[in-house]
This record gives sequence, C-alpha cells and structure tokens, in this order.
Amino acid sequence: MTGHELLEPGAHRAHGVADDAALAAAMLRVEVAWMRALVDGGAAKSDHADAVERAVDGWQPELDAAEVEAAGNPVLPLVNALRARVEDPDAAALVHVGLTSQDVLDTAQMLVARDALDRVLADLDRTAGALAALADGHRASVMAGRTLTQYAVPITFGLTAAQWLTGVLDSRDRLDDVRRSLPVQCGGAAGTLSRAAQLVPDPTDTAAALADRLGLSWPGLPWHTRRTPVTRLGDALVQVGDALGSMAVDVLTLGRPEIGEVREGAVPGRGGSSTMPHKQNPVLATLVHSAALQAPQLGAQLHVCAGQAADQRPAGAWHAEWPSLRRLLRLTVVAAGQAADLIADLQVDSGAMTRRAHAASEALLSESGDSAGDPSAYLGASDAFVETALARFRGGRGDA
Amino acid sequence: MTGHELLEPGAHRAHGVADDAALAAAMLRVEVAWMRALVDGGAAKSDHADAVERAVDGWQPELDAAEVEAAGNPVLPLVNALRARVEDPDAAALVHVGLTSQDVLDTAQMLVARDALDRVLADLDRTAGALAALADGHRASVMAGRTLTQYAVPITFGLTAAQWLTGVLDSRDRLDDVRRSLPVQCGGAAGTLSRAAQLVPDPTDTAAALADRLGLSWPGLPWHTRRTPVTRLGDALVQVGDALGSMAVDVLTLGRPEIGEVREGAVPGRGGSSTMPHKQNPVLATLVHSAALQAPQLGAQLHVCAGQAADQRPAGAWHAEWPSLRRLLRLTVVAAGQAADLIADLQVDSGAMTRRAHAASEALLSESGDSAGDPSAYLGASDAFVETALARFRGGRGDA
Amino acid sequence: MTGHELLEPGAHRAHGVADDAALAAAMLRVEVAWMRALVDGGAAKSDHADAVERAVDGWQPELDAAEVEAAGNPVLPLVNALRARVEDPDAAALVHVGLTSQDVLDTAQMLVARDALDRVLADLDRTAGALAALADGHRASVMAGRTLTQYAVPITFGLTAAQWLTGVLDSRDRLDDVRRSLPVQCGGAAGTLSRAAQLVPDPTDTAAALADRLGLSWPGLPWHTRRTPVTRLGDALVQVGDALGSMAVDVLTLGRPEIGEVREGAVPGRGGSSTMPHKQNPVLATLVHSAALQAPQLGAQLHVCAGQAADQRPAGAWHAEWPSLRRLLRLTVVAAGQAADLIADLQVDSGAMTRRAHAASEALLSESGDSAGDPSAYLGASDAFVETALARFRGGRGDA
Amino acid sequence: MTGHELLEPGAHRAHGVADDAALAAAMLRVEVAWMRALVDGGAAKSDHADAVERAVDGWQPELDAAEVEAAGNPVLPLVNALRARVEDPDAAALVHVGLTSQDVLDTAQMLVARDALDRVLADLDRTAGALAALADGHRASVMAGRTLTQYAVPITFGLTAAQWLTGVLDSRDRLDDVRRSLPVQCGGAAGTLSRAAQLVPDPTDTAAALADRLGLSWPGLPWHTRRTPVTRLGDALVQVGDALGSMAVDVLTLGRPEIGEVREGAVPGRGGSSTMPHKQNPVLATLVHSAALQAPQLGAQLHVCAGQAADQRPAGAWHAEWPSLRRLLRLTVVAAGQAADLIADLQVDSGAMTRRAHAASEALLSESGDSAGDPSAYLGASDAFVETALARFRGGRGDA
Repeated sequence: MTGHELLEPGAHRAHGVADDAALAAAMLRVEVAWMRALVDGGAAKSDHADAVERAVDGWQPELDAAEVEAAGNPVLPLVNALRARVEDPDAAALVHVGLTSQDVLDTAQMLVARDALDRVLADLDRTAGALAALADGHRASVMAGRTLTQYAVPITFGLTAAQWLTGVLDSRDRLDDVRRSLPVQCGGAAGTLSRAAQLVPDPTDTAAALADRLGLSWPGLPWHTRRTPVTRLGDALVQVGDALGSMAVDVLTLGRPEIGEVREGAVPGRGGSSTMPHKQNPVLATLVHSAALQAPQLGAQLHVCAGQAADQRPAGAWHAEWPSLRRLLRLTVVAAGQAADLIADLQVDSGAMTRRAHAASEALLSESGDSAGDPSAYLGASDAFVETALARFRGGRGDA
Repeated sequence: MTGHELLEPGAHRAHGVADDAALAAAMLRVEVAWMRALVDGGAAKSDHADAVERAVDGWQPELDAAEVEAAGNPVLPLVNALRARVEDPDAAALVHVGLTSQDVLDTAQMLVARDALDRVLADLDRTAGALAALADGHRASVMAGRTLTQYAVPITFGLTAAQWLTGVLDSRDRLDDVRRSLPVQCGGAAGTLSRAAQLVPDPTDTAAALADRLGLSWPGLPWHTRRTPVTRLGDALVQVGDALGSMAVDVLTLGRPEIGEVREGAVPGRGGSSTMPHKQNPVLATLVHSAALQAPQLGAQLHVCAGQAADQRPAGAWHAEWPSLRRLLRLTVVAAGQAADLIADLQVDSGAMTRRAHAASEALLSESGDSAGDPSAYLGASDAFVETALARFRGGRGDA
Repeated sequence: MTGHELLEPGAHRAHGVADDAALAAAMLRVEVAWMRALVDGGAAKSDHADAVERAVDGWQPELDAAEVEAAGNPVLPLVNALRARVEDPDAAALVHVGLTSQDVLDTAQMLVARDALDRVLADLDRTAGALAALADGHRASVMAGRTLTQYAVPITFGLTAAQWLTGVLDSRDRLDDVRRSLPVQCGGAAGTLSRAAQLVPDPTDTAAALADRLGLSWPGLPWHTRRTPVTRLGDALVQVGDALGSMAVDVLTLGRPEIGEVREGAVPGRGGSSTMPHKQNPVLATLVHSAALQAPQLGAQLHVCAGQAADQRPAGAWHAEWPSLRRLLRLTVVAAGQAADLIADLQVDSGAMTRRAHAASEALLSESGDSAGDPSAYLGASDAFVETALARFRGGRGDA
Repeated sequence: MTGHELLEPGAHRAHGVADDAALAAAMLRVEVAWMRALVDGGAAKSDHADAVERAVDGWQPELDAAEVEAAGNPVLPLVNALRARVEDPDAAALVHVGLTSQDVLDTAQMLVARDALDRVLADLDRTAGALAALADGHRASVMAGRTLTQYAVPITFGLTAAQWLTGVLDSRDRLDDVRRSLPVQCGGAAGTLSRAAQLVPDPTDTAAALADRLGLSWPGLPWHTRRTPVTRLGDALVQVGDALGSMAVDVLTLGRPEIGEVREGAVPGRGGSSTMPHKQNPVLATLVHSAALQAPQLGAQLHVCAGQAADQRPAGAWHAEWPSLRRLLRLTVVAAGQAADLIADLQVDSGAMTRRAHAASEALLSESGDSAGDPSAYLGASDAFVETALARFRGGRGDA
C-alpha cells in the first residue's frame, strides 16, 4: 500500500492507466519502433531491431529514482538500462540514436493517453446508451423545471436525460477527434532531426515511419515547444468532466431526500456511513462531481505550461505538464467509469416527479397564463428536443 | 477615468469589445431579431417589429446598476426599459415574450465574442504573414539551439519562426472553427420553449429563424446548462494565448542584452523607463507574455462553471462565467494586436546569431561527432520543416 | 455605459474601489509623499513639496492609453504629466526622482487595497453581527443535519449560523492582519535605492518616512520580486470568498422550494424573472456563490506570477498581477456587501425546520439507538459550539 | 513499478510522505487516540484501548479499492478491518464510536501534513543557511541589475541572495505558524458530537483530549465545512513554492551560457542529456521551477472546494481536496529538498559578474549621471539590505 489509491476512491478503475509500468512500456515501445524506422531508412539492420525487441520482451524495468531525478526525466536511465540489456553491441549502440528524451517521453505519453481515451470512450458510449434509453423512456415523465434553484416551468425527465446525453456526445465526439490525431513527437536534440539526418536519407520519412508503426499521426514537424497536442488533449478531457459533472450535480440535487426524484442504484456495501446505519450516500455522483471540480485546474496547468514553452525545450514548463496530464487521464478514466455505473443503475421515480409537478403547478404554470392547468400540457418543444438528441445518438457523430 | 485601463496596458486596442455598450447593443439586437422571428412565425406583425426596431435605433441604454443586481442580470432592466420606449403598446407587450434572460444574455455574448474573434483573427493573420516572411527569409540564419537553457544543436531562425508560425496557425484555425459555429441560445424559461410554443406553430423553427437573422448557428436544442459553446470558445482563446506567449517568451530571452539576437522594434516613446534614460524595454513581448500567464486561469474559470451547471439554470455557475469570458475576449484582442505589432517590427540580428553559433560550435556540434565542424552544416531537417510550415501557411487551412 | 458593470451585478457596491481614478489618485499620493520624504531627508525643500502638492490638488489626470502601453505601465505617463503641471521647475525636476515605476504602482495598489479592505471588513462585521444574532436566537431551532446530501443527525440552525459566523470571523481576522501590515514598496531602479542614496544620507530612512506618511509599513527591504505582500493579500481575500461562498451555498440549498427552511428577504424588484411572474430568485446568494467560484482562480493568478518573479523586475509576471488583484479586490467588496445584506434580511422558517426534523426523525436518529426519540434531545454539543462561536465574536479576535 | 515516480523526478525525496501507508497509519493512530480519549472520559476501559492498540501494532492494512470506492472514502473499510482484528469484542464494538469518517480522515491528513511540514521546514532551514552565507560572502560581488530583461543599475550578488533568503524566511515562518496550529477534526456524524455525548460527560473535553494525544490543536468546534485549516495549509505550501520558484528562475537565467554568472553544482550523472555529451542541464533549478508552476493550481483547488463546502459535509467538494492536498504536500517536500541541494552546491562566478558589470557600466550607470563611473560605487543601500536580511536570519522569526 505504497500507492495513492486511498484518497482517490475508484482508482482501481484506472489500473494500469498511465502508471509507471505503462509509461515505461510505452517508452520501450517507442525505442523499438524507432529502431524499426531506422531499419526502414537503411540506418540499421533488421537484426539490430530484433535484438532490441528481444531485450525489451517481457522486461519490466526498475529505474532508480535518484537517476531519474539526476537526468531530469526517466528516458536517459531507461535508455542506459536498455542498452545494457541488448546483447548485440552494435544494436545497443544504435538504441535511441537520433532521438531526444522529449521525443520518447512525449510520444509515450500519447500512447498511454490513447489507452486511457479508449477506456473513457467506451464508458462514454455506455453512458450515452443508458441516457438515450432514459430520454426515450421518460418523454412523458413531467417534472418541475428549476432555475436559480426555484420552480420555473414544467419539463420532462426525458428532456433532462436528453440534455445530459447531448453533453456526453459533445465530449465524446471531441475526445474521439483528439484520439484520432494523437501525434508522434520526433525532432531530435533541438527539433531539427540533425542526428537522424546523418543516418537516413530523409529523416522526415523516418519520423513518419515511426508514427506509422505506433499508429500515431506525424504532424509534419516536431512540437517540442508548441504544445497544442497536449492542451487539445487536456481540453477534451476537461470537457468530459464538465459533461459528467453537470449530470452528477443534478443527480445529487434530485436525490436529496426532500426532492427524491432520482436515486443512485443500491449496491450492497455502497454508500454506507461509518456511523449512521440508515444512510445511503450517493457515492458515485459525489465522486463524479469531485472529479469535475478537479479537472479544470489540471487543464489550466497544461495551458500555463504551453504558454511558456521557451527555447527549443523549456526548463520546467515541460516538466510541469507530466503529473497533471497523467492525473487528468486517470481522473477521467475513473469518473467515466463511475458515471457509466451511475447512469446504468439510476433509479428514476417518475411518480414523485409527476406528483411534485402537479403540486407545484401554480408556480410552474405562472408563465403560461393558465396556472390552473395541467403541467403536462405546457411542455413546449420538450419532445422535439428529446428527438433531436436521440437522432444524433442514433445517427452517430455530429455536433449539437 | 472611471474605467479599468491603467492596469491593462493596451486596453485601447479592445475599445468597444465586449464592454457594456457593446453588450447592451447586442442584447437589443437579439430582442429585435426575436421580434422578426416571431413575425416569421406569425406571432407578431411586421409593424410590431418595426416599432421595436425604431425604439432601439440609436438608443444607448443606461441601466441602473442596482436594478441589474436586483434582477441578477442586465436583461430584465433592459427589457423593461425597451418596453417603455416602444410606442405601440401591442408591440411593447410582445418584446422578449417567449425568451428568458439567459437566451438574450448568452446569445448577446456570442455576438460580442464574434466581433472580438474577428479582430483576433485579423491580427493572427497579420502575425502569420510576418512570421512566414521571417521563416522564409531566415532559412539560412544559423543560430544556437537551446534546451533546458543550455546550448543544444544548431538551428536556424527560420525554423524558430516556422514553429511560431505553426503555433499561430494552429490557434487561428481552431478559433476560426469556433467562430463559424457560435450558436444562438434559445430555450425560454426552462429550456422547453414553452411560451414560444403558445405563439408559433413550431418554436424550433422560430429558434432557427432567430439564429439565421443573427448569423449564428442553431444547435438543435438549448444549452442553458450544457456550456460547451462557452468552454470551446474559452479553450480556443486560451490556445491563442499559448501560441503568442510561447513566442513572446522566446523574444524576451533572445532580446536579453547578453544574447542580443532579436530586439523589439524601436518606436519613439515605447519601452522607456521612469528612471533610467538608456532603457529600451521589450514592452510588447512583456505584455503578450503577461496575457499568456493570465488566460489559463480565465479558461479554467469557464470549465469550473460548466462542470457545475445545475438544474435548468444554475444559481452562480452561470453568473461566474460572464466576467471571465469578457476578460478573456478583451485580453486576447489586446494580446493579438500587440503580438502582431511585435512581429511586424521585430529586429533580427542574424549576424549575432551566426557569430554565437560559431563561437559555441564545439558545444553545438558535440552530438554530431565533428565538434570542429560548421554549425551550418548540421541543420538536419530544418529547411524541410520551414517548408512544411510555409506550405501550410500558403495553402490555407489544415492542422499540424 | 462604456464600463463593465452589466456583467458584474452589484458592481456599484465597489464604486470607486481600485478603479482608474482611485489608482491615479493613489499614485499621485505616493509621489507627493515621496517629495515630503525627500524633504525630511534634506534632498528637497518644503517649497518643492508644496508645489507638487498644489499641482496634484484636485487634478484628475487623463492618461493617454497608447502612452500607458508604450511605457508598459501608467507611471511614466503620469509622472510626465505631473512634472508638466508643477510650476516650479526645480520641484518638477525632483518629482519621482529616486523611485522606479514599480515603487509607485505597487505602493498605490496597497493604498487602494487598504480602502477596499476597509469596506470588506465593515461588511464582514455587519455579517458577523447578524450571524451572531441568528446563532443566539436559533439555539433551539432543531433542523435536519445533512451530509453528502442525505439526512444525518439533528442539528440546530443556531449551530449552522455559528459555523458560518466562525468562518466569517476567521476570514475577518486574517484580512485584518493583512490590512495592518500592508507595506510600502521602495527600492528604486533595481532594488538598491541607488539614486535616492545620492540625495539623502540614508535612503532606508527615507523609505521608512514614505511608509510613515502613507500609513503603510516599511518591511526593511524592497519586494520587487518577492511578492509575499501581494499573495498574502490575495489569499486573505480568497478566504473571505470561501467563507461567504460556503454560507451562500447553504442558503441556496435550504431555500429550494422543496426544502423551504430559509429564504432571501423579499425586496421589491429583487429576484424577479424576465418571464415568470411568480419567481423570487435568491439573487444575493447566487451572486455571492458566483464570487466564491471566481476568487480561487484570481488568487492562483497571483501565485503563478509570484513563483516566476525573475531578475530585479519580471517582464510579464509583474504585469499579470494587476488586473487579477484589482478584480479580486472589487469582487470581494461586492460579495461582502451582498452577503451582509443577505444575512441581515435572511428569513428563517424555524417551524419548517422543526417539522422536517420530526418528520425525518427515524433517519436522523438512527445513530442514536432510539429512532423513535425526539430530535431535539439528540443535539450533543450543539449548544456548546454555539457558545464557543459567540464567545469569540463577543471577545474580539482569536482564531478557531 | 506501479507507482507514479517516473513523471515526478525527485519523488524519492518524498518517500513515505502522505502515501497510502502513511495515511493508513495516521488513520489508525487517530482511532487509537480516540479510544484513549474515551477512556479519559470514562466511556471505555484501558483494557479496551490496549486491545485496539495491540490490533494496530505492526499492522499494515491492505484495503480493497472497490470497498474504498463503495464507501466513498477509506475510513469505513479501515474501521471494519480494524474491528475484525480486535480480539476483545467489547473493545471492537467501541472502535470509532462517536466519530465520523471525516473526523478520522481530516485528522489523519493533518498528521501526515505535519510530517511533511517538518521535512519542508528542515530543508528551508538548510536553504536559508546556505543563502545567508552567500549573502554575507557576496556583499561586494557587484553584478548587473536587470529589469524587464534589460540592464538596470548595479546590484550585488549578496543582495540577490539576501532577497532569496527573505523570501525563504517569509515562507518558512508562515509554514511554521501553520504547523503549530494544525487542528484535530472532531464533530461526529454532523458536527454535534451527538453520539459521543451519549458516552462521555462532556464531548468537547474528549475532543480536546484527542487533540492533546495527537499533538494537534482543538479549535473549539469542528470544521467539517469550514475549511480554513486546509486552505491555510495550502496557501502556506504554495508560498513556499513561490519563494523557491522565484529563486530557481533566477538561477536558470543567470546560468544561461551567454550569461554564465551562476551554475548548478556538477554532480556525476546529474544533468546529462540523452543525446548530447557536452550538456550539463540545470536539473534541480528546472525541477524547482516546475514545482512552482504547479503549486498554484493545487492551492486553487483547495479554495474551489472550500467555497462550496455545503450542508454538514459536502458531496464532492470535500473529496476533491484530498488528492490535491496530498500532491501539494509531496511536491513541496520534493522541491524543498531539491532547492536546498541546489543552493548548497551553487557555483557562483563573481568574476564573471564583475566583468559584465564593468563591461555594461555605461548602461548600468545611466541613472547615476556618471556613466563613466565604477559600478561598485553605485550600490545604494545594497549592503544595508543584506544586513537587514541577515539580521532577520540570525535573530530568528519576524516578518519582512
């Protein structure tokens, strides 16, 4: 228990995401792919790449923390350890040649980000599916609309779910865009591929080959100090938090005992209190809300760094990105899983909604001119909006 | 001098951007467009809309600040004042009917944002043009590459400018995307268009007509508590700050007297000191850097709000957006103008660059294996990267 | 209406706080006090200082925005304009001599901060007084305790008010500490008082005299790049927002129509809706909550700058402080006034509290072992805690 | 290597700080101390407390991550596991009785914070000692003062070190204040100590006894939703980052090869490049700067939560504190250690400083009126300011 899970309930959902083992594996994957790209470019032999691949196979490197600090990043110690493991000395000498630490670390972070995004996207799809069912099934579940905490006009729970759904789809589509364009970093010591250019006929071809082997995109030039790929990723993750957080806050409000219109699904052992036996706390909504409170600061951190990316590699503004990006990836993976579970099991008490809407109808209908009317008859375009959201859900991508 | 310009040097560049007068004018524009949309829907007569338009024409409303606070936002006082000015009582009674305050205020903010974005885009284009000329003209200007503050391998100033250019283009393209999809807000009291539905056959048609008249998009359903349009806008503005800030930091470093490779253009009266006659401070780069330090917190503010957008209109999370978005718009307008001036007049001392590159060639060439060589001969893909950036600049849009 | 009040409801409460006129007046006050300090040190004659004071008297300087930008800050244009107004050329030549722009601007900001703090402190006192009365008067008003949104054990409204009170006192005491130690900035061009040392026998005496004349403290050495005074001020202001925000969030929750245990006092014209006649929105609580959502980012901005204060005056990190500090001052003035009004008029429905506590007694007493009991009999140390808070309130200062 | 050390170079310096094992140990310590406090109050026998202490002795609990999530925090699973280990069933039944999860978790975080603060304070003392020596030894080392990146007037390196020292002492003193007043959290289910009041004559005595046994302060009433202790701690930690960051940025600038006035001490293996053999990167200054870039967002996170602490325990705003506080503690421990090493080994080239000051004397003396003079003769109060800083260092506490 030397980890950091006790203060991040749900951290097990992010097991293996962007942790040290995953990062080390990704860095090794970059080094191997680079060797293969050098082979493509005629600078190394297949035997060299095979030797490196054998050295990596099954290896779980243990780096010395003091060496990581001394190097300022984990790449140099990893490369040294890798070279020592490669049996063919010619191959060992070629490991990492032409790259710089930042090429390896930035690219490895894109790889671990991709894995995280795949998990997030799967959970967003799960959430979207459940929300679509709620939106469709509760088109007629009239409830009180509330603005600035007070009763407004009637709405339906179907519309509420449709709005949540649209937020989830917005964030899903943007995250998917980002996922499809995660770029390789490849520039060498100062962004000129100078060393690689000594080895291969066209180092930009080799960079493109590296990208190809890793399933990443080659953006045409390195981005050592142009951190758009990192901030785009961060912004998209924060947007996921926004969408889930806004939903969680509503669940928390509607689940207050005085309101009682929705409730987290009861799971044995979930939501208990250490002192009050009756308690059923909305744990998942609480944790999703907590995540949404945290994501903006992490996203801001990435921008604070991006705006100060100096020289050909900044002394600090690069380093300050790493823990925030990792934390943002893991936080989003956890929250997306929690939100999917939350929505899958959400208990909706449409009877309570309807009873309240009728009890509060005088307020809810004050705008309509007929405050003695039926709230269900004053729903305006609610159903049309549900249909818009569902059509988008069914039809796949497209922004709303 | 009751304004707030003394602590925001360059604020005059944002004259008329998102200030109270611009916002009031935009709110009135929304009310007029809505009247016209009601006419389209058969709920009002052209005469009504004409009467409202006459009342608005040339009017610069002065709202009472205490009334704005009492209402919690400026819309209700504005609507009351407008109704009082409309001579035809039937027309007056129709003003704002079917809308809610948030429809007007959110839409008006999109309108003032569009004006701000047009200014920013024009200045980014100006900057990009100047950077393209620098990149092209300095392909052969060898200089020291610097990583973690220390000498790395040689680069060219052309490559440096090409990287700045790519950052500017990245941010320009994203901002342009956002500008093209700025949406109208139209949902009525609680996002159902309930009141409008009493007036027109299909209130979503009326919403679309409103969008059309304002040149905004109609996203298919309201976004009262789904703040993607605001955060997308914010993220794009912060990205502009990132791109300009990273460039400004480089200018500041390269302009240190011990380095002296670039210098802000000397303009009479600019950069003087209150005590030291010799001083020529890099004022524009300083102010652009300052803006880049501020934008991330403003963008984070928008996300903090978005993740807590509760009910059908949040009590606080909506209100906390407004000053930050306005400030971010104005800050970016100012910084984009300053950056464009900075780059247009940038003094590049390629002789100093070359002299230093040769003086430091032992360090700069240590990677190459020939530390007695010529730095100009170890530039790798520098020129290819310049070409990539210039091709994108010339060819118009496309991401790198 | 070229100001920025429409998007900051309540901005009139901060009229004259830290705006351009106040700042210009404060800068002029610094220049005059410096002349007097030079007289003390024998470097100028009383006549000189009198001449400068006459030039300043009643003057409301209008600075050219372009000149402010060209100088990078408003001090140089102001000094030039002042010198031009001073009739005695010898006196004119002595204006500002020995100071640097940062001395004047930092000190002026401390002066406008002091005015803002006086307003905030007065409103916090008003709030504390009202809260103490509520705590005292509602010791016996039993209500449901709520944790994680669900019923916990019974509490009293007196205890709730006592906790709010303690938070307000915590923030009041800290702000008062800060107010008492606001320092003068005085270091000259690069923090050595080199020019002043040419004029007076001991420039640190002159710095102390400047502080004395302005009622500020002289911290013994300049703090051009050691921004503790700014961040301490910012942290204390953010803490005020925390205390008020936490209270406002509770008011918003307890004022939901389904809960109905407190309500904002009804003031004609406050809280109305642009479309729904029945609505009584909790406007003040909403705006206070909004302020609490904004303050943390502004405080963070000051720290982002402080941690990068480089050289003997940073190029950007200093400039980025200004708008955030001003905004934080004004935001807190407004929120403190709104909170004081909110609490002064708060409508407490202790009957509703008691009815709910009894209706929910089974849940509220599940911990006690006697779920059929009386909630009023299971209040533990509630009254003792109320007494602790009131004793502190009555006894003046001291931390809890 | 499932940890998170690769992206936080220097993380080994925070080994055992606020990690899961430390937190679990602290939580157990709270439970044992509470049992002892119950004994003091007559609610339990010494035998009970002995039995609990035996169960805890040497135990390293492994909590199930899914159970932690289900409970929403680690306390309930820990209490359950602890009860199962206590052999005496009467004692087991008394474990945790009267407390709530938040009491245990908040108090445990104060305990782990205290350990972290002790480490930070020791390293700040180490840094202060080294800076005092530098300030004292370099009173006569004239160097160029620089403002807005350009030459200003001459200063000394002694003054530079004295300013860094004062910043370190400011932050040290504030952190020490916070350390001395870290409070126990003790309120029971909803802040009334209701359950404890059933067991002991005066539950506030028992709360005070708990504090006493843990060496914490008892603030007189619980602070479940009044998060001043957390934000005060956070603000103080961020201030440490500010002080160290500002120093690190100066070291980075002065260590640029074109300036070369200071240099990080060369340690074998530190600062190497993965590709360029000549490189000696300023690793420690880079990492300290990186920390200073991160701390403000973490501190802001705590305030974002504090301003929304609702009900008697918030659903999310409490949870979002935990990872940020832990991260801020660990980040500061690491940065304080790195800064102490950095300053202890800092290489100061006073010859280079003097040479530059003379070479640039025309600019540096332009203010003085004698630009042909000696920079060493235009140092104003530099030495007096050094003395002020050293006097404070020698005399112990006191603010500057």
